[in-house]
Amino acid sequence: MEQHARRRAALRVLLREAGLDVLLVTDLVNVRYLSGFTGSNAALLVHADDDAAHAEDRTMLATDGRYTTQAAAQAPDLSVLVERSCGPALLGALAAPGAVGFDSAHVTVDGHADLLAALAAGELRRAPGLVETLRAVKDAGEVDALRQACGVADAALAGMVAADGLRAGRTEREVARDLEERMREAGAEGPSFETIVAAGANAAIPHHRPTDAPLADGDLLTMDFGALVDGYHSDMTRTLVVGTPADWQRDLHALVAEAAAAGRAALVPGTATRDVDAAARDVITAAGFGEQFVHGLGHGVGLVIHEAPAVSATATATLEAGMTVTVEPGVYLAGRGGVRIEDTLVVTDGGAVPLTQSPRDLVPESRDET
Amino acid sequence: MEQHARRRAALRVLLREAGLDVLLVTDLVNVRYLSGFTGSNAALLVHADDDAAHAEDRTMLATDGRYTTQAAAQAPDLSVLVERSCGPALLGALAAPGAVGFDSAHVTVDGHADLLAALAAGELRRAPGLVETLRAVKDAGEVDALRQACGVADAALAGMVAADGLRAGRTEREVARDLEERMREAGAEGPSFETIVAAGANAAIPHHRPTDAPLADGDLLTMDFGALVDGYHSDMTRTLVVGTPADWQRDLHALVAEAAAAGRAALVPGTATRDVDAAARDVITAAGFGEQFVHGLGHGVGLVIHEAPAVSATATATLEAGMTVTVEPGVYLAGRGGVRIEDTLVVTDGGAVPLTQSPRDLVPESRDET
Repeated sequence: MEQHARRRAALRVLLREAGLDVLLVTDLVNVRYLSGFTGSNAALLVHADDDAAHAEDRTMLATDGRYTTQAAAQAPDLSVLVERSCGPALLGALAAPGAVGFDSAHVTVDGHADLLAALAAGELRRAPGLVETLRAVKDAGEVDALRQACGVADAALAGMVAADGLRAGRTEREVARDLEERMREAGAEGPSFETIVAAGANAAIPHHRPTDAPLADGDLLTMDFGALVDGYHSDMTRTLVVGTPADWQRDLHALVAEAAAAGRAALVPGTATRDVDAAARDVITAAGFGEQFVHGLGHGVGLVIHEAPAVSATATATLEAGMTVTVEPGVYLAGRGGVRIEDTLVVTDGGAVPLTQSPRDLVPESRDET
Repeated sequence: MEQHARRRAALRVLLREAGLDVLLVTDLVNVRYLSGFTGSNAALLVHADDDAAHAEDRTMLATDGRYTTQAAAQAPDLSVLVERSCGPALLGALAAPGAVGFDSAHVTVDGHADLLAALAAGELRRAPGLVETLRAVKDAGEVDALRQACGVADAALAGMVAADGLRAGRTEREVARDLEERMREAGAEGPSFETIVAAGANAAIPHHRPTDAPLADGDLLTMDFGALVDGYHSDMTRTLVVGTPADWQRDLHALVAEAAAAGRAALVPGTATRDVDAAARDVITAAGFGEQFVHGLGHGVGLVIHEAPAVSATATATLEAGMTVTVEPGVYLAGRGGVRIEDTLVVTDGGAVPLTQSPRDLVPESRDET
């Protein structure tokens, strides 16, 4: 509760800077971030007043009848309006609307028409990304949750390797389910996104979905997975080889590892995220594989698996301490396989601290001797 | 592939009726429905021409570089534009746009501005819900997939009951994980939504998330869960009692069962879905529990867990053969518990056929003797 009130206070500063009297929050993740409420239908009104107590008094959560009990339990400090059509209901309840911001990156064209119809007076203004700006910089509790989520994924992979779970003959799907089961046993609410396990030529498909294809000796094996803990998402990719690596696999892995290290080293507060992308991308481009690195270097991660800041060649964000981002360069060779190495890190004034800590080796230590 | 071409042909009829020359499809589920492509970033342009072959030639899928291989594999019959910003890229590639429909129930206010900027000529028109209208009536392959998904959920529950998995002392979370694991073993890609297991007073919360609370003798136990098979979602709720039911629990269960039966019996082509809601709701209202039935009676189900048609007091849809909907009345008594009984059914000219087939008893048959 206190953390949510703190976040609403921080949001009020942004509202005043934007010249808004009130913000209608419609994205459910933003509602959760600002109120603690996790139901599937909700909206929130946050007022900009300087007078914090007065503004807090008027903060209003809307949800429908399915969630009355849950809203009272999760957001006992807020008044709750029970109405199915949450956004229009909140605007309709506004006595003196003034300048009302709405999230134009989330509200649909039809939804906007409904809001306009509900607003008796005042003015509806585009105000995209305000809560996302706050969310990009994590507070201590959020970093803890992310560290836990990352630890759970680390534990799952370590357990899998120790149990010889990545041997030839197992299928991609078996490995994916095994990872997910191990994450749940280690405390995850579930996987943080659809687990990717890609073996052999499938490893050339960045977002491959696991199939019944069996792992074969000599395959590159890419696993991209994460755990969900307290609503926070971890994200990690490791590429291993099943059996003994060929020289081209060692070379490719070493190249991507070098790019990943360069990306991680560039995670310094004040750096443009596009320069972080460039630091890693330059390594791969210089080696002649620039065309085979077909995606951005990374993304913010938190209550959503992909959130601000973007870390790519076209991104416009600048790093701040407290941001949690992934660094995940990859090179994909159609028909042969690919390598991606990804970590989730928190940016601090002393540099980036990895929250995912699994070894990045091409050959797991437990069978280094082979 | 053939089924996707058939669906695009059906869509072209709707486009011509709406006076549109072309439709920009941006919702990923609609893109999948019309093309077979399942990547996480895509859009599709469908032309309205009478000349089917010519129109098909110009059908264009856009996705980004991560999915080039996947797009070629899943939609080999379509030309693919590789571009990160899919919607604007497709509009920018239009030679003679004419009247361009977009899904105003899906495109955001900011997204709309981007589309407008990309369109060199022609006119952008709101066209919400066209593909959803098609999707509401399932073809035979879709009904088969839903039947499989429902069968998987049935098998999971039967296995759980047979293994005495609903005994006192187990936690809500254990039961939820057990159900999910059994669904995976029976062939599900995963659960079709977040599994609800609510015991005792928690059963009064319609969308309760499972906790570490143990089941106790005498608890009402509500399980609302489903399986995902080939992209199709099943949805079923059963309320059982742990141990021996009290009279009030038997009465409440019998009331909800009667309402559910009335709702299922009302699933006849040509009936307004609001009348289906009324058929079930009237039973509960007549018994004095109208205020405790806090949600709509049901919803369409298919590639999305909640889709058209809505089945509620305010819905405007009319049933057609081939629609697949849920019927799920519930009564919730704060502090005491609740009962919900839900099935997924397909509407046919001969009446509704349940796809979920688990027994609806308050006491599982395997311990009827107790």
